[in-house]
Amino acid sequence: MLQKRIAFQGEPGAYSEEAGYGYCPTADMVPCETFDAVFEAVRSGACESGLIPIENSLAGSIHQNYDLLLRHQLFIVGEYYLRVRHCLIGQPDGEISTIKSAISHPQALGQCAGYLRELGIHPEPVYDTAGSVKLLKGSGDLSKAAIASKRAAKIYGMKILQESIEDNPQNFTRFLEISRDCKKPEDNERTKTSIVFTVKHQPGTLYRAMGVFALRNIDLMKIESRPLVGRAWEYLFYVDFIGAAGIDPGITALKELKNFALMVCVLGSYPLFDLDRST
Amino acid sequence: MLQKRIAFQGEPGAYSEEAGYGYCPTADMVPCETFDAVFEAVRSGACESGLIPIENSLAGSIHQNYDLLLRHQLFIVGEYYLRVRHCLIGQPDGEISTIKSAISHPQALGQCAGYLRELGIHPEPVYDTAGSVKLLKGSGDLSKAAIASKRAAKIYGMKILQESIEDNPQNFTRFLEISRDCKKPEDNERTKTSIVFTVKHQPGTLYRAMGVFALRNIDLMKIESRPLVGRAWEYLFYVDFIGAAGIDPGITALKELKNFALMVCVLGSYPLFDLDRST
Repeated sequence: MLQKRIAFQGEPGAYSEEAGYGYCPTADMVPCETFDAVFEAVRSGACESGLIPIENSLAGSIHQNYDLLLRHQLFIVGEYYLRVRHCLIGQPDGEISTIKSAISHPQALGQCAGYLRELGIHPEPVYDTAGSVKLLKGSGDLSKAAIASKRAAKIYGMKILQESIEDNPQNFTRFLEISRDCKKPEDNERTKTSIVFTVKHQPGTLYRAMGVFALRNIDLMKIESRPLVGRAWEYLFYVDFIGAAGIDPGITALKELKNFALMVCVLGSYPLFDLDRST
Repeated sequence: MLQKRIAFQGEPGAYSEEAGYGYCPTADMVPCETFDAVFEAVRSGACESGLIPIENSLAGSIHQNYDLLLRHQLFIVGEYYLRVRHCLIGQPDGEISTIKSAISHPQALGQCAGYLRELGIHPEPVYDTAGSVKLLKGSGDLSKAAIASKRAAKIYGMKILQESIEDNPQNFTRFLEISRDCKKPEDNERTKTSIVFTVKHQPGTLYRAMGVFALRNIDLMKIESRPLVGRAWEYLFYVDFIGAAGIDPGITALKELKNFALMVCVLGSYPLFDLDRST
C-alpha cells in the first residue's frame, strides 16, 4: 500500500508534523517552507493532502490560512485537534538541575513563562521550536535547554528533561486537512461544514444570516467576524456548523444564505473530530 | 503638565510603541517585558494606562490579552488601529543593491515574503522586529538588512532603504487602552462597548444572544466564538457593539443578555476609533 503523502509547514519535529502523525499514523509527512508551499504541493499533486493549523485556543484564528483557503480551489476534508505539550529538552546526558537558560520560539517561551520563572530558567527567543533543538544539539551546552515537541527531542536524539511544562493546559491547535477532491460525508450528525461569507454591514444582517441556521436547528460550532479594512464590504464571517453542505437542512440553509449574502464560499464538509480524543 | 505614562509590551521601537505615539502623541511610553507586566503597571498605578494589541487583520485575535482583561479588574477606555508598515532597514551608509539577507521576527518576514523573493533577499528569522535593528547595528554588515518599524530605524540611527514592503496592505493591528478607571462616554453613537459572555452551548442560544442586540437595532462590530476545551460551558463569545453599556438601548440589551447567559463581563465603553484616520 502506498503511504499517503501529507504536506506541512515547518521543519521535522514541528507541531504540525506531530499533528500529522496523530491524525494519520501511517502518513508520510512532507515538510514545506511556507504555507503557500503546502497549498502548492497539494494543488500540483505532489502530495495527496496538506495539514494546516487554522486556530489555537490561546493565540486565535490564523487568518492567513483562511485567505489561502479562499484563494485556492482546495477543500477541507478533515480536522484534528492537537493538545500542544511543550517539553523541556536537554543534552542526552543533561540534568534539569544544571539548566540556566531555555531557547525556543517566543510563543512557546511565553506559554511556559510561569514554569521557567519558578525554576529560575532564563528564556532566550530563537526563530523556531524544532529549530531550537537543532541549535541545542550543535552547542553541546549542558546549562541550556530547548522547548519543543517530544518528537523534536526524538528526532535529534536529545533527552526530555520534563514533559508538559506549559502554564495553561487548555492549549490546543486545530488543524485542517486540505485536498483537491472534496469528501462526500455520510453521517450528517458527525459531519462539520466550514463556510466563509460576507454580508452587507448594517444592523441586523448578521442576525439574519445566523437565523438561516438557528431556525433549522443547525448547531453552530464557530462564528467569527473579521474586519476587512478598506473594502466595500467590511466583514468576512467564518462559520462552522454541524451537518453537510450537500444534505438537508444544510442545502436549504446555504441556499437561503446565498439569497442575501454578498459571497458564500463552502470550504468543505468533513468528519467532526471528537475533542475527547485529544486530551 | 504631567505626561501620561502608557505601558506597552516590547522594546523601544516596537509596533506597540509606535501605536502609542499615534494614539497619544504626548505620551511617555513605558516598555514592559510581558503583557502581564503591562497589566501590573496599570493596576499598581505605576502607569496611568496600558496599550495592548487585541487583534491583527492577518493574524487574528490575541486571546491571551482577552484572558488578561477577564482576570484583571481593568477597563478598556480607548482603541487605536495601527496600519503596520514594515521598513527595510540598513546601515547608515547602506544601499538596497548590496542587501543579500534580511533579519526580523518570523511573522514580519512572512508578511514581506513576496517582496524579499522578488529582490532575491534571503529571510533570516530572529526573535523580535525592533531587536533585529539592534542586532543589525551591532553587526555593521552592509549585506544585511532588518525589517521593523520606521521608529526602530530612527531610534538606532539606521537608514530606511524602503518603506511599506509588506505584501498585503490590509495589515492593521487594533490596540486597546486599559485603565483602572472606566470612562463615561457622552456620545452614544461614537462609542463602542466590548463584552465577553458565555451561553449554554445548544442550537439557538447564540442566535438568541444576538437577537438581544439585533432587535434593538444595535450594530455589532465584532463577534467571535472561542472554544474552551474541557470546560462545562464550551464557548466564550467576544462581542463589540456600537453604543455605551450605561446608556439605553445598551442597558436593557445587557440586562436581557444576563437573564440567560452564564456569564457577562463588560470590558468597557470607549470612543470609537475612526478607521479612516489610520489608512
